[in-house]
Amino acid sequence: MRTFLRLPWRRCLSTSGASVRSLLELPSLSPAQSEKTHIAQGWIKGIRRLKKATFFHLDDGSSVHALQVVVLDEHLRNLPGLCFGSAVSVRGNLVASPSPQQPVELVATDIHIDSANDTEAHPFKVKQTVHPDQYRQHLHLRPRVERFASMMRVRSAAAIAIHEFFRENEFFLVHTPVLTTNDAEGGGEAFSVTVANKEKEKNKAEEEFFGSPASLTVSGQLHLESAAYGLKRAYNFNPAFRAERQQSRRHLSEFWMVEAEMAFLDNFDGLLFWMENMLKSVTEKVLQTAAADFKYHMDHVAPKNHTALIEKMAESSFVRVPYDEAMRILEKHSMQFNTPPKVGSLDSLNFSAAQIKSKYC
Amino acid sequence: MRTFLRLPWRRCLSTSGASVRSLLELPSLSPAQSEKTHIAQGWIKGIRRLKKATFFHLDDGSSVHALQVVVLDEHLRNLPGLCFGSAVSVRGNLVASPSPQQPVELVATDIHIDSANDTEAHPFKVKQTVHPDQYRQHLHLRPRVERFASMMRVRSAAAIAIHEFFRENEFFLVHTPVLTTNDAEGGGEAFSVTVANKEKEKNKAEEEFFGSPASLTVSGQLHLESAAYGLKRAYNFNPAFRAERQQSRRHLSEFWMVEAEMAFLDNFDGLLFWMENMLKSVTEKVLQTAAADFKYHMDHVAPKNHTALIEKMAESSFVRVPYDEAMRILEKHSMQFNTPPKVGSLDSLNFSAAQIKSKYC
Repeated sequence: MRTFLRLPWRRCLSTSGASVRSLLELPSLSPAQSEKTHIAQGWIKGIRRLKKATFFHLDDGSSVHALQVVVLDEHLRNLPGLCFGSAVSVRGNLVASPSPQQPVELVATDIHIDSANDTEAHPFKVKQTVHPDQYRQHLHLRPRVERFASMMRVRSAAAIAIHEFFRENEFFLVHTPVLTTNDAEGGGEAFSVTVANKEKEKNKAEEEFFGSPASLTVSGQLHLESAAYGLKRAYNFNPAFRAERQQSRRHLSEFWMVEAEMAFLDNFDGLLFWMENMLKSVTEKVLQTAAADFKYHMDHVAPKNHTALIEKMAESSFVRVPYDEAMRILEKHSMQFNTPPKVGSLDSLNFSAAQIKSKYC
Repeated sequence: MRTFLRLPWRRCLSTSGASVRSLLELPSLSPAQSEKTHIAQGWIKGIRRLKKATFFHLDDGSSVHALQVVVLDEHLRNLPGLCFGSAVSVRGNLVASPSPQQPVELVATDIHIDSANDTEAHPFKVKQTVHPDQYRQHLHLRPRVERFASMMRVRSAAAIAIHEFFRENEFFLVHTPVLTTNDAEGGGEAFSVTVANKEKEKNKAEEEFFGSPASLTVSGQLHLESAAYGLKRAYNFNPAFRAERQQSRRHLSEFWMVEAEMAFLDNFDGLLFWMENMLKSVTEKVLQTAAADFKYHMDHVAPKNHTALIEKMAESSFVRVPYDEAMRILEKHSMQFNTPPKVGSLDSLNFSAAQIKSKYC
């Protein structure tokens, strides 16, 4: 690693730097850790200039909690670009914070402005309340917004937890093909894949790159079944595609989907057992690895009492209800739905069940 | 788990069964484990009928090594369907094997034929040597063939190792979009995505599902860059697509690709450090978690001395060679290439370097 010692201190960070999350989660602050120099890099979230000190929150995207940085040095306090939104590298000493809001804070001994924010031109201002829809005008800035960054971290944690569940249970990941001639669900809702026809004179046959019509996968089930007859347990975690024209949260053109196939699983109870276990295992892991983000969502985004519902789900055994019985329960409460549940409509069962579950389970 | 006790014994397996791999890897066979009944399910790979016993290898896809099953009971030995390729469930006692070829073997007390193989109709026969190309006629059977199953397990282990490397280093997984209007590399080699035009009279505009031309991603870099400016470290592991008409191992229409973006990484040495670390970490993990499969490939598929080369790669520091110097080395050995290396051709560097490396590094 000798190469890196020759670089200025802020460059070392790219290989050895601590994330804000890891600094905030230090189990306890030993005297040695206080004396050691720490380096943190991120974006200034909020800044307060008092008479003798400047405080700012450093957000590096690793946690929903930011690191409080204390700047006492007069020269550093007056650095041009030390403002909301700027990208900065801070070197300093980590000390126990006098405030109960954070366990530690970083007292800056050096600050480098990596990129100064033009606060006039920036679409969002410090401490401004922005409606989620307004972020649609600035999609590329979403990962800098707490609410979206937090959601992205939870999604990442969930994806990793899914892979871990399958690995622990000796499933093998199979990258089933995305380009396919196979229409698994037969709904005719697959997208077609062609090569852009640059000269209009070319005939249809030349557009067919693969010699036969190709479409985007709607499911990898067929390929997984073949894999399971050799590997016994196989799963995929792939993008899937549906050319459905409805615009709703339940009709996406592109989404990521988990599918699993097991050989020698010949009973429905066993299948339900695996599905329940996967849901619980993934939920528990996300609650552990993304605890702060989960709490943030429960406090700011989710409906009330959602935490209790999720914790109960992870603890309880799932109830098995036959279709007819489920419909009877739904019909008993049909007054509460805009679209009353209807026997024979699977869609109605899916949708209503989520609502009824949150009330009656 | 009381539900499952009511099911016949072979059904319990779907939730509690041990894989062949886990049975073979039992650290030591305690008397308690010998007395305990074990259940294994898989496919019969090879079968030998001796005077007083029948032996067969049970392959369940979890390992390149099969479990030897010993059948002494006359009734079980004569079960119809106890032949090569059949899917069977075996209950029995695990004992230390008298043969040095395997640590343990399963002495069957009960066998259930889950699906009898029609050996006449089956395209492959027991102990038959099949050229890899012949399997192309029976793609769905590949996962049942040692060589391919082993490769699939290594690929799965490598994919999981990649996710683990990034998780350990606080990167967040981002599912960058596959459908996009963005052509990252500008090569015009993207596939177009449309909805199949069922009525020929419909005009072009109606074919455009999204209101503007959409194509399949060639790279998620743009989206990852935006994610990295909020999450600091972001990666994807996505399918990517290139509409290149060449047919070679280096020109695939669909492939899975890892991309990573880091904020605050502003020097080339740091970037090389991360790339080297990722390659080594993934290699080491695959060598650990897929050790038997790796050895199988080194013994049966890879060129000679490949093991030593890979182990050396994992142990050594990667040499940094400037382009000009690399070209000089290649030119010095240009006699050894069908296509001599040419200054200015990146492609020639990529391709030749792999060959020269295996000889001179």
